Amino acid sequence: SAQSTVNLYGLIDLSIGSNKAPGGTRLRDVDSGKMTTSYLGFSATEDLGSGLSAVVKMEHFLRADTGEAGRFGGDTFWARTAHVGLSSKAAGTVTLGRNTTPLFVATLRMNAFGDSFGYSPSIRHFFTSGTVTGDTGWSDSILYTSPRWGGFSFGLIGALAEGSNGRNWGMNAGYADGPVAATVTLQSVKKDGTAAVADTRTWQLGGSYDFGAAKLFGQYGRVKNETVVNQYRITEIGAKVPVGAGAVLAQWGQIKPDTGAKRDTLSLGYDHNLSKRTDVYAVAMRDHVAGLSTGLGYALGVRHRF
Amino acid sequence: SAQSTVNLYGLIDLSIGSNKAPGGTRLRDVDSGKMTTSYLGFSATEDLGSGLSAVVKMEHFLRADTGEAGRFGGDTFWARTAHVGLSSKAAGTVTLGRNTTPLFVATLRMNAFGDSFGYSPSIRHFFTSGTVTGDTGWSDSILYTSPRWGGFSFGLIGALAEGSNGRNWGMNAGYADGPVAATVTLQSVKKDGTAAVADTRTWQLGGSYDFGAAKLFGQYGRVKNETVVNQYRITEIGAKVPVGAGAVLAQWGQIKPDTGAKRDTLSLGYDHNLSKRTDVYAVAMRDHVAGLSTGLGYALGVRHRF
Amino acid sequence: SAQSTVNLYGLIDLSIGSNKAPGGTRLRDVDSGKMTTSYLGFSATEDLGSGLSAVVKMEHFLRADTGEAGRFGGDTFWARTAHVGLSSKAAGTVTLGRNTTPLFVATLRMNAFGDSFGYSPSIRHFFTSGTVTGDTGWSDSILYTSPRWGGFSFGLIGALAEGSNGRNWGMNAGYADGPVAATVTLQSVKKDGTAAVADTRTWQLGGSYDFGAAKLFGQYGRVKNETVVNQYRITEIGAKVPVGAGAVLAQWGQIKPDTGAKRDTLSLGYDHNLSKRTDVYAVAMRDHVAGLSTGLGYALGVRHRF
Repeated sequence: SAQSTVNLYGLIDLSIGSNKAPGGTRLRDVDSGKMTTSYLGFSATEDLGSGLSAVVKMEHFLRADTGEAGRFGGDTFWARTAHVGLSSKAAGTVTLGRNTTPLFVATLRMNAFGDSFGYSPSIRHFFTSGTVTGDTGWSDSILYTSPRWGGFSFGLIGALAEGSNGRNWGMNAGYADGPVAATVTLQSVKKDGTAAVADTRTWQLGGSYDFGAAKLFGQYGRVKNETVVNQYRITEIGAKVPVGAGAVLAQWGQIKPDTGAKRDTLSLGYDHNLSKRTDVYAVAMRDHVAGLSTGLGYALGVRHRF
Repeated sequence: SAQSTVNLYGLIDLSIGSNKAPGGTRLRDVDSGKMTTSYLGFSATEDLGSGLSAVVKMEHFLRADTGEAGRFGGDTFWARTAHVGLSSKAAGTVTLGRNTTPLFVATLRMNAFGDSFGYSPSIRHFFTSGTVTGDTGWSDSILYTSPRWGGFSFGLIGALAEGSNGRNWGMNAGYADGPVAATVTLQSVKKDGTAAVADTRTWQLGGSYDFGAAKLFGQYGRVKNETVVNQYRITEIGAKVPVGAGAVLAQWGQIKPDTGAKRDTLSLGYDHNLSKRTDVYAVAMRDHVAGLSTGLGYALGVRHRF
Repeated sequence: SAQSTVNLYGLIDLSIGSNKAPGGTRLRDVDSGKMTTSYLGFSATEDLGSGLSAVVKMEHFLRADTGEAGRFGGDTFWARTAHVGLSSKAAGTVTLGRNTTPLFVATLRMNAFGDSFGYSPSIRHFFTSGTVTGDTGWSDSILYTSPRWGGFSFGLIGALAEGSNGRNWGMNAGYADGPVAATVTLQSVKKDGTAAVADTRTWQLGGSYDFGAAKLFGQYGRVKNETVVNQYRITEIGAKVPVGAGAVLAQWGQIKPDTGAKRDTLSLGYDHNLSKRTDVYAVAMRDHVAGLSTGLGYALGVRHRF
């Protein structure tokens, strides 16, 4: 209970806006997490000497518009992360418990809208379009993250079957140096917690280049659903253009399934920083699924990191 | 994660006592929140310059007698509040999310037993006698609170319909200067979260005067239920008399419905401060509903703010 | 909200291992709390002068392998403890709310594997072998803990019936001086929260002696189930042998019921301290219930206190 070692942190993102899913009806709402899912976290680090340290993290998602715990009804309390591990400057970090997947981290890093479940076409196409199964954090998992060697780094994750129909595993390798960054990620999913889910295999390439006047993003990937036998080709491009104390954000992406409807999504926005920790944003999205009325959304929001 | 900016605070109120609801049977119990509903809170404030700041708050109710989350089974985790907003010294504060209603704040301020769901006749009559619908905090809401201009201030709240059968709104105006304080509050409710509830419209006048030897309180209000067509007239008077390191508390109130039984409630107590943050209390209540055996309760408790 | 008075603390224990319950099948898993159930806590203390202080505690169990709240699905959020009380250096401490039972504290103190629900034969035999009813923490309870008078101390706990089929009560007396420690504990259970449970009466004797080269532990107790009419005789012996920066742990125990199968459990392990707050462990258990295939388990884990 040495208090100085514990960090208490989080982010609340709330907005007013309007949402119409493809084929759905419009709903005006106050909503939480349109740019970043709101959360509260606790972490601790202890220096064990010789470049080794112990790390602990617990992170809780919440819907700040209603005060409800979790991202949805029935979500686990510490769904964002819950782990303990050992970190070595020379040899990397191993954490045990509920860990964020490398695929999710790669997806959020290589698009202009980051980890926005509301407005990032990349997140939408890889994670909420009937594509990748499993969650963005895996229970019962072991995550290894390498140190950075001259710009290179890699990660490995595995989640034990624990009586479900198989293990999950994932890996990514990345390079980042000055203006350039690139990643390649693989992932195989058979379960979500203890629930068996459709087997999916995913690969994704991503890259970004910062020209200064603009940072450009690109992603290409395939998700193969081996249970229902379908394959999704996903292409994403975006840009972040610094303007004043903020940035104009633009991102476009497309899913082409072997079987089923094509989806095209375009998001545009302006994110204005009031400080390092507080920003206000105005974002809009056009989300088209072939054969359905076009989805439309916009949000005016405020986000505070603490 | 700059820890110094985050406040961790709360209150635990536990007591031993006995409760008999009108028409009910007596139950001896250890209970939580008889004087103030126990809670745990996290808040952060960031100075943005020019008198502007960012504010975040998350507050969780708990039943400390059993360790259960929420005020009741199925309550949302962050039911007390969950919001982010911007506060300007000159222009006031706007917060988005789950906000406490001005009606609840006015009710607790203008009676001797404050926000006591156990022993305040005012809280009981306005909020838990089949009168005001909706909760004391509104999901999906926007709250504006004005600065204080020479003793005057006002507040506005609105909660979006979000697919339910209509919006909620409320407003209050207040004056406070030296020994005198007065408020007028209006409120209209159609929903509680996403659940449609009986439409109620409420107005309330409240005032207090601090004579030094005693502080007197008075409230009058009407709650109109437009769904079942009934109206409740509510009258409340009370006094807080400083004695030693504490105060004697007395509060009496009455509900007269157009249709249904009259209710008279009298609470008496002594609240003794062991410090600014810890007090012990002895309180009793007589709660009479016409046609039912009289309700009776008492509690001996301890309350700590941290 | 004076932040300096609030402590934020806890423990995360995660391991990789394999478990086979007696008569069950083997499951390899990442699991939480094999040596100590993972938890997060908040506490506050206020000095009231004259040797008196106010104390508040809220402690939340979690399953860090999946991020789920509680020890099991449906567990209360603050199941570990939730109380407020007054503590006097001269007269002892009284806390109201959800309190840990003296029987659980005595059981964990007098065995080599402490409060390990995964690997302590003592905890397993007294609390998870169909023996003691009720939980290790009691809702609606009042706990008195005496100061220490020349090595002697005692505790009393009572939980009000609150409409269930009776009260719970417990008491313990202990002596600790230099290398020697001894306890005697009694407990009677009729309810768990508001749920009526089988009436059980328990007595337990425990002792330890620290020879320096090894600390030895012994426990003997009886649990009488008065609802189904059965009695369990429980014998436990163990040793903790300091080796390097850690200790070898060994504990063996047996249950002999009047009716039903005998159970023998042996646990062995090595716990290595990386620091005062971080340790890694390797533990194994053989758990035999007459007539069933032998249970076996092992775990390699890391535990961090913060």
